[in-house]
Amino acid sequence: MPVSSHENETPRALKPVKASDKRIVNGLADINQLAPFKYKWAWEYFLKANKNHWTPLEIGMGQDLNDYKNKLTPAEKHVFENVLAYLTTSDILAMRNIGLAVMEKMAAPELQIYQARQVYEEALHTWTYQHCIEVIGLDQEEIYNRYRVVPEIHGKIALANKRLNRILSSEFDLTDRYNLQEFVLSYLFFAVIFEGTWFYNGFSPIFSLQRRGLMKGTAEQLQYIMRDEVLHCGFGIRVIRELMKEENIQLDPKEVALLWEESEAAEQRYANYILQEPILGYNADLHMQQYRFIASRRARQVGLENPYPESQNVLPWLDEQANIKKEKNFFETRVTEYQTGGGLSWD
Amino acid sequence: MPVSSHENETPRALKPVKASDKRIVNGLADINQLAPFKYKWAWEYFLKANKNHWTPLEIGMGQDLNDYKNKLTPAEKHVFENVLAYLTTSDILAMRNIGLAVMEKMAAPELQIYQARQVYEEALHTWTYQHCIEVIGLDQEEIYNRYRVVPEIHGKIALANKRLNRILSSEFDLTDRYNLQEFVLSYLFFAVIFEGTWFYNGFSPIFSLQRRGLMKGTAEQLQYIMRDEVLHCGFGIRVIRELMKEENIQLDPKEVALLWEESEAAEQRYANYILQEPILGYNADLHMQQYRFIASRRARQVGLENPYPESQNVLPWLDEQANIKKEKNFFETRVTEYQTGGGLSWD
Ligand SMILES: [Fe+2]
Ligand SMILES: [Fe+2]
Ligand SMILES: [Fe+2]
Ligand SMILES: [Fe+2]
Repeated sequence: MPVSSHENETPRALKPVKASDKRIVNGLADINQLAPFKYKWAWEYFLKANKNHWTPLEIGMGQDLNDYKNKLTPAEKHVFENVLAYLTTSDILAMRNIGLAVMEKMAAPELQIYQARQVYEEALHTWTYQHCIEVIGLDQEEIYNRYRVVPEIHGKIALANKRLNRILSSEFDLTDRYNLQEFVLSYLFFAVIFEGTWFYNGFSPIFSLQRRGLMKGTAEQLQYIMRDEVLHCGFGIRVIRELMKEENIQLDPKEVALLWEESEAAEQRYANYILQEPILGYNADLHMQQYRFIASRRARQVGLENPYPESQNVLPWLDEQANIKKEKNFFETRVTEYQTGGGLSWD
Repeated sequence: MPVSSHENETPRALKPVKASDKRIVNGLADINQLAPFKYKWAWEYFLKANKNHWTPLEIGMGQDLNDYKNKLTPAEKHVFENVLAYLTTSDILAMRNIGLAVMEKMAAPELQIYQARQVYEEALHTWTYQHCIEVIGLDQEEIYNRYRVVPEIHGKIALANKRLNRILSSEFDLTDRYNLQEFVLSYLFFAVIFEGTWFYNGFSPIFSLQRRGLMKGTAEQLQYIMRDEVLHCGFGIRVIRELMKEENIQLDPKEVALLWEESEAAEQRYANYILQEPILGYNADLHMQQYRFIASRRARQVGLENPYPESQNVLPWLDEQANIKKEKNFFETRVTEYQTGGGLSWD
């Protein structure tokens, strides 16, 4: 329809917004108005994420090309390439989930603003993989296509796409109680499994190379990605807990059980493929034990029953490695390349 | 519907993606796969935007509180507060336009990735206004509500919301030629008018204070926002030009004329309100002359007929101010506060 000139008249004034009108979903408050804040913690997440700013150009990649060409065994190359192939697609999907499916359903600007930062961070992660692929000189088309031609990689993406497509549907209406549960399940899948477990645990095979002094640049990049993902998962868990309280939602235990089951099965197929041959200090069994350990932690954090009460932390060196080396190394290699001082041009 | 176990089987492999399958809208290529690139320029925009990284905490605000309290005249306070009130809402709307209406319609990841950065930058701009409001100690609820209670501010937002809501509709389908033109018109409105002219020209009243040594911190913040907006507008113009070529779109001249007409009328009402009393060196007439001059420039850049062929650059000092002072000042006040070296924790 053409623009009616009637709509263009000076509109009448509207009533002020109250913080108490805000809701996580289905809120009544003006979505264009930031303050008064209701979810102060979401704003704090935004500020914290900005303090963590980094880019892949700041991290030295000096040894990675040589390591890849001359030091990795065929089994290690297979692990390295396929983990990267999974991650490239995975982070675009993470971006699309937040940017296209989740953000629009959030009915308070302070929530959307953190998600705007998160959407960007997912793009930054995609840039990081692209940077590693370029530095190491991998065949881009082949690597990016791999998730499509390797069924064991595609399985994880397909599971995520299924959840995503369900809530992306134009008929999806959150005022319906059934849809609301579907939304929570999808959000839970992305925050707690896809980001909080698959990503979190998914970097470990490359960290195991790093521990042996191999592919240290790529691994350091992944440590920065991991720091971001920890915030994404933490924010997601907070949203889920508050949303379930606000809307008085009880998840169907059968649906939750299915969520764990499907995710574990997809991860198991993936682990069997990327680690079809074990590498020094890492194998598919360790990967899956650690997967269940992290999944337990996430279940506890989000207030769900522990799906793997027997699980144990079989790779304690990962915690150590992630926490300590970082602080020692980073300032030595850091190059600040921001052009914040560059000229502003009036065009 | 419950998840069917059938969907969860290992999926079959898919064919590789070709760059030539990519399109700006209605593309057939896999949206989850970054490379092979088709729109290299979009990726370059993303890299450039990252190089421009900044945050409001880096810019000194030392004199602004004192200036606001003790130096601004009532007419200058009126200008300052209402420009800020317009901007707070305006940038949330810019974020929602890109994040919720535009990004999902872009059918190549390299386009979505720049938009992910843009969505974040709009959130960063919102943070900047919030930072200024906090430092100067303005009444937050009152300032943020102002766009709702002042019809002359609300008019600009309402015009943007009308365009946005039309393309946000769940029935909106870009394979329909009529909808495609509506989409281009809405996109054009946001990139060329809302960002490229209203924002661009909208900071000038505060730059006129800066020129006289007043509210220099706030003005410097706005200069950084302007640098981002120049990229947003440039990217938008590039998308429009390529999209019109790809889809062989001719815009209805009546719709284009209406676009300019409505936008000018809304800007005129706004200028009359914020500058109901002129301030030293700046008034509503100068504001509107400059509005038309910038609008002409944007029309030319996007390949449309010039709506204001008589318009002239009546505020040439703005170009100078924006270009020169910046480089001199910035490094003196810059404090790098990123915590990129901070500890990574494995939880
Ligand atoms: Fe990510
Ligand atoms: Fe993430
Ligand atoms: Fe902005
Ligand atoms: Fe913008």
